[in-house]
Amino acid sequence: MQTAVQITAAEGRGAGAPVPAAVAGASGYAGGELLALLARHPFVSVACLMALATDGKESMSIEAAHPKLRGRFRAACEPLEAARIAAAGAEVVFLATPHEASLEVVPALLELGLRVVDLSGAFRLKEAAAYARWYGFEHKAAAALAESVYGLPEFEAPAIRRGRLVANPGCYPTSVILALAPLLRAGWADRSAGIVADSKSGATGAGRKPTEKLHFPEVNENLRAYSLFHHRHVPEMLQALELSEGDFTFTPHLLPITRGILSTVYARLAGVHTAEEVERLYRQAYAEAPMVRVYPAGTLPEIQGVAGTQFADIGFALDAPTRRLIVVSALDNLGKGAAGQAVQNFNLMWGFPQETGLL
Amino acid sequence: MQTAVQITAAEGRGAGAPVPAAVAGASGYAGGELLALLARHPFVSVACLMALATDGKESMSIEAAHPKLRGRFRAACEPLEAARIAAAGAEVVFLATPHEASLEVVPALLELGLRVVDLSGAFRLKEAAAYARWYGFEHKAAAALAESVYGLPEFEAPAIRRGRLVANPGCYPTSVILALAPLLRAGWADRSAGIVADSKSGATGAGRKPTEKLHFPEVNENLRAYSLFHHRHVPEMLQALELSEGDFTFTPHLLPITRGILSTVYARLAGVHTAEEVERLYRQAYAEAPMVRVYPAGTLPEIQGVAGTQFADIGFALDAPTRRLIVVSALDNLGKGAAGQAVQNFNLMWGFPQETGLL
Amino acid sequence: MQTAVQITAAEGRGAGAPVPAAVAGASGYAGGELLALLARHPFVSVACLMALATDGKESMSIEAAHPKLRGRFRAACEPLEAARIAAAGAEVVFLATPHEASLEVVPALLELGLRVVDLSGAFRLKEAAAYARWYGFEHKAAAALAESVYGLPEFEAPAIRRGRLVANPGCYPTSVILALAPLLRAGWADRSAGIVADSKSGATGAGRKPTEKLHFPEVNENLRAYSLFHHRHVPEMLQALELSEGDFTFTPHLLPITRGILSTVYARLAGVHTAEEVERLYRQAYAEAPMVRVYPAGTLPEIQGVAGTQFADIGFALDAPTRRLIVVSALDNLGKGAAGQAVQNFNLMWGFPQETGLL
Amino acid sequence: MQTAVQITAAEGRGAGAPVPAAVAGASGYAGGELLALLARHPFVSVACLMALATDGKESMSIEAAHPKLRGRFRAACEPLEAARIAAAGAEVVFLATPHEASLEVVPALLELGLRVVDLSGAFRLKEAAAYARWYGFEHKAAAALAESVYGLPEFEAPAIRRGRLVANPGCYPTSVILALAPLLRAGWADRSAGIVADSKSGATGAGRKPTEKLHFPEVNENLRAYSLFHHRHVPEMLQALELSEGDFTFTPHLLPITRGILSTVYARLAGVHTAEEVERLYRQAYAEAPMVRVYPAGTLPEIQGVAGTQFADIGFALDAPTRRLIVVSALDNLGKGAAGQAVQNFNLMWGFPQETGLL
Repeated sequence: MQTAVQITAAEGRGAGAPVPAAVAGASGYAGGELLALLARHPFVSVACLMALATDGKESMSIEAAHPKLRGRFRAACEPLEAARIAAAGAEVVFLATPHEASLEVVPALLELGLRVVDLSGAFRLKEAAAYARWYGFEHKAAAALAESVYGLPEFEAPAIRRGRLVANPGCYPTSVILALAPLLRAGWADRSAGIVADSKSGATGAGRKPTEKLHFPEVNENLRAYSLFHHRHVPEMLQALELSEGDFTFTPHLLPITRGILSTVYARLAGVHTAEEVERLYRQAYAEAPMVRVYPAGTLPEIQGVAGTQFADIGFALDAPTRRLIVVSALDNLGKGAAGQAVQNFNLMWGFPQETGLL
Repeated sequence: MQTAVQITAAEGRGAGAPVPAAVAGASGYAGGELLALLARHPFVSVACLMALATDGKESMSIEAAHPKLRGRFRAACEPLEAARIAAAGAEVVFLATPHEASLEVVPALLELGLRVVDLSGAFRLKEAAAYARWYGFEHKAAAALAESVYGLPEFEAPAIRRGRLVANPGCYPTSVILALAPLLRAGWADRSAGIVADSKSGATGAGRKPTEKLHFPEVNENLRAYSLFHHRHVPEMLQALELSEGDFTFTPHLLPITRGILSTVYARLAGVHTAEEVERLYRQAYAEAPMVRVYPAGTLPEIQGVAGTQFADIGFALDAPTRRLIVVSALDNLGKGAAGQAVQNFNLMWGFPQETGLL
Repeated sequence: MQTAVQITAAEGRGAGAPVPAAVAGASGYAGGELLALLARHPFVSVACLMALATDGKESMSIEAAHPKLRGRFRAACEPLEAARIAAAGAEVVFLATPHEASLEVVPALLELGLRVVDLSGAFRLKEAAAYARWYGFEHKAAAALAESVYGLPEFEAPAIRRGRLVANPGCYPTSVILALAPLLRAGWADRSAGIVADSKSGATGAGRKPTEKLHFPEVNENLRAYSLFHHRHVPEMLQALELSEGDFTFTPHLLPITRGILSTVYARLAGVHTAEEVERLYRQAYAEAPMVRVYPAGTLPEIQGVAGTQFADIGFALDAPTRRLIVVSALDNLGKGAAGQAVQNFNLMWGFPQETGLL
Repeated sequence: MQTAVQITAAEGRGAGAPVPAAVAGASGYAGGELLALLARHPFVSVACLMALATDGKESMSIEAAHPKLRGRFRAACEPLEAARIAAAGAEVVFLATPHEASLEVVPALLELGLRVVDLSGAFRLKEAAAYARWYGFEHKAAAALAESVYGLPEFEAPAIRRGRLVANPGCYPTSVILALAPLLRAGWADRSAGIVADSKSGATGAGRKPTEKLHFPEVNENLRAYSLFHHRHVPEMLQALELSEGDFTFTPHLLPITRGILSTVYARLAGVHTAEEVERLYRQAYAEAPMVRVYPAGTLPEIQGVAGTQFADIGFALDAPTRRLIVVSALDNLGKGAAGQAVQNFNLMWGFPQETGLL
């Protein structure tokens, strides 16, 4: 029988036993965020922690990787293996791993009857061929890919509820799709005029591996645009928004901050609309979405309003005479852009209110 | 007879006596930058320092405002008055003052036969009416406005050379105009597709007055878009680029850094061009421009490459099949975006090589 | 009858109704932090929000002050008045107000039978005379001062449990006292050799009022020592540690970060001890202290390990041959240094486990 | 015959030909700073650039390492070899290399008759044995070590003037020695009371090699004390200040900024002195030191006052009744703490005024 390894278990809070969960990739930034959220979730108990690399040792202390979590977990990180996860009694597995690792372990996890929330890009694109172009590898887990569900709760809730494998969206795509989907679904955007998404992200979005590009003095007091026209998150946005490549330009930038994404999205309306109508469109689209906050016309979200939270905030400005619309969306790349969204997906999968443990 | 007030004077370096200069608005960020540049300029001697407010005192120490300048100047800041400047023997006046102050003092300075480089927006727009709309005041210095020259050395050198009143461009406009002018002048951009300039600036661009918006914890770890569709720098860009309002969208953002602007500019080419052709276009446009550095295709400038320098750096990426072009330009808002450009204008006005004192 | 104003109430979680609480000074940084903690606390319901200044209006939206709290509270901030608080049904009042405001409202609140946690310095010093010297005012609320309890839960738990007025310690004192108290109480420090506490704090510790000293470009990429020998928090530390002024030197510094304090504390041991003995001394002192984490010898806490948490982390290094000891303590100035400690005090006052709502 | 490789040569400015210089370690942070200074120095021409590693290629572009230097140098970085330096005609060599590389190349350079300014720690300690303890290697270049001069111009100018091998002091030692030397040389400090130097440095002080400790999200919004009691710079300070290990405690901290060091130094006066006397002591000590600025009593230097400059700023506060003195010193770790000091040493070695090219 499994036991929770976190010190403050949620036992007794809910009716029935908490859901035992495994977290793989626990030593990374998204993994640490997940652990912090799960330790506070009333209906989850963390059954095991797994790290990709345990420095050749049998296990690795979680507090070496995440000083904030010192004293919060009894267990150390073990090497990632499907069998260990099953043995620990986990029913759900959160994979905060690189896509290579997810590709390898997911089929085995499904085989063992576990449900998976995968934070990597390994199962987000419907067409296997897209992986060759954008990721540079041949996708061989066709069966898993076929059954994977794109885990954007605001638009895919029914499929997520019954999903066995939920592909948690990327941080940039979450930010851009939430900003554009209501507009595009309503047919209000003039696609031929082109849509530009200029996004700016904090450095944790680039992961924990030290590189010269992420060396402190190279990021601090700097701003850098990168991967122009060919960022891996582009196909995910095209797929979700049903846009063609020539009509949609996405540019990511590296901000000298730890966490948070702000996307400034430019579109032209196809018809004439007032700011009130645009606001109503967004409010209706997100009426049932507890983790999206729509701002009143003329008020714009900022990164500070979402950093450390699990919300995505959406605001806009309209120049009605010229039909130019700018939508600004903000979220925490480790929150709604990663761990928070993963927990929201978990909540849907197990029938809890979406916001459980996220406020 | 005037005397240089800076400790390390340039005496003897050039042939002939250095040009005596006054700096008004010396206690602000651009003023401090100007002083640092002028103290190092081989053909200038600072004749007097002026501050808008001297806290009710007769004068104000410059090192209280700028600790970096401790020990570099003999004189204190006096209250700004045209007569004092003339009395100090200055031949050129740098106004790093708010537009209200520039509006008031410029006619008197011209009357006294001084030449002026004005860093404010007071004399940048050709049409007085534009001031009513974008700045909210009635422009009454019509004669001065009529003779003012827009001080962008890369495109207005002949007029600057003979100018008495040079209106130093804004930091955002310098960044955006340098990115777009070669393209637009060549007629290569499809204006009907719209042009988007998404700019991000460090906090010194907003000046030195403490406000809640610029309070450290409100800027740090944050990013904020502001003044959507109605920033004061828009008309300056429309004027210089000969664009109409509906075809050009400019969005400024406040970065959590001290200095630097990065502009990401989106356009669609009207015809078919290769990256090599685009690079050649820019190289030719700036062949005689020592303060603009054009990057090879595929290499992009970053803020760190220009912060603390007087350069504007320009790079781009082209998606040839879809004719989408992204131009990225970087400069230091206090350097090429303000003080460095002012000195470059001064160099032109007095016949020195443009880069004198700026490398 | 009072109603909770926060959206996610804690109803039903505990046995019995949650404790209705008022938060005054809700628009400041500590106030916002308190609201975020209380909204998540299982046994508290926020009954009313009060701001010192509501900009002349009847009330002020809390999300204007704290974008993160958008959508989390039903009520707006009202002007601070004891009668309003009582009318709202609050049983406990958290005062995140300047000491002037606390001094004025505390007697009235006690009179109305409310229990108070005051985050200001108004009731921390036992001797009224000390206020004249260190704060520059004549303390006139003698009765309240006499009954106030210094709210450092690790050392004053019994008095806090029965306290009506708990004076929440300052952020710097919490950091320094927790670092030194075990050593001094054990008599292990050579007081005559002098003790130095060199502390570094994030900018939220200085409050929300914009000033030139806290203007973004003046704090960013900077470090500044201030208030040498005469910071207001000195007498609080001398009182709690029973040190004399000549033997204890405290220097605060302003760090270019938003939150967190690191104190590096230098002492000389009176006798010979090993690192193991020192570690044991601290472990024993904090064996029952859930919000203090003692690090193993040779491991040091950092600000990142505590920022956003309610913990104080303590580590040390000993040079045994020369008996030099350095204790390093880290906490979040808005967490264990303010709001987290206030909630910890509340938990003690109402008999909940100290860490309730703080993990 | 050698040719200057920098674009803006200093030709013609001075009387006589400029001194040809080689810079090794050009791709590091101190190397880049040196190049920027030398490109502006009126009496130097950069004859060749050398990098430790050129990525297996024949040479490496300097602008890849330092975008700010784009367009400033004609030559690329070659692999470091004594013979190449001599062949390039250099008369002085600046080694901004790790101590391993300096140890290896210095004897050959001296052999070739070149004069060397070494920025590493390889030749700073007089006793070879100290290298075994503090650096962990056996020092085998005894002859070079014997003739090396400790390059602190404020106290060693005569020896530096005639030196062939000048060991440029470390950044922390420069900051701490300048703060303490006047006091200790005057015999005003009570050594038995112990002296504490609590230093805080920007991240460029740790070099350019990416490591987890210097990964942006690990430094940002953080402060970390490190190397307690055993930092390599300790013996250098003990040697220069003639202090014994038990009486002097040095603690470095890593600040979330790019450049700058602030040292807060605690001492107790042996006798009774006023603040005026202390100020006079420091003013006299640095009366002939153009790169040290002494602040008036009660005014303290900050990092912003020195970042980007070549100055060291010194201020203090005295609590006369208890004889406690706090000296605060600030410098730029890449400026007066490295490259600026190296140029100052060069100026002394060639008989130029110390501040040449540094203002």
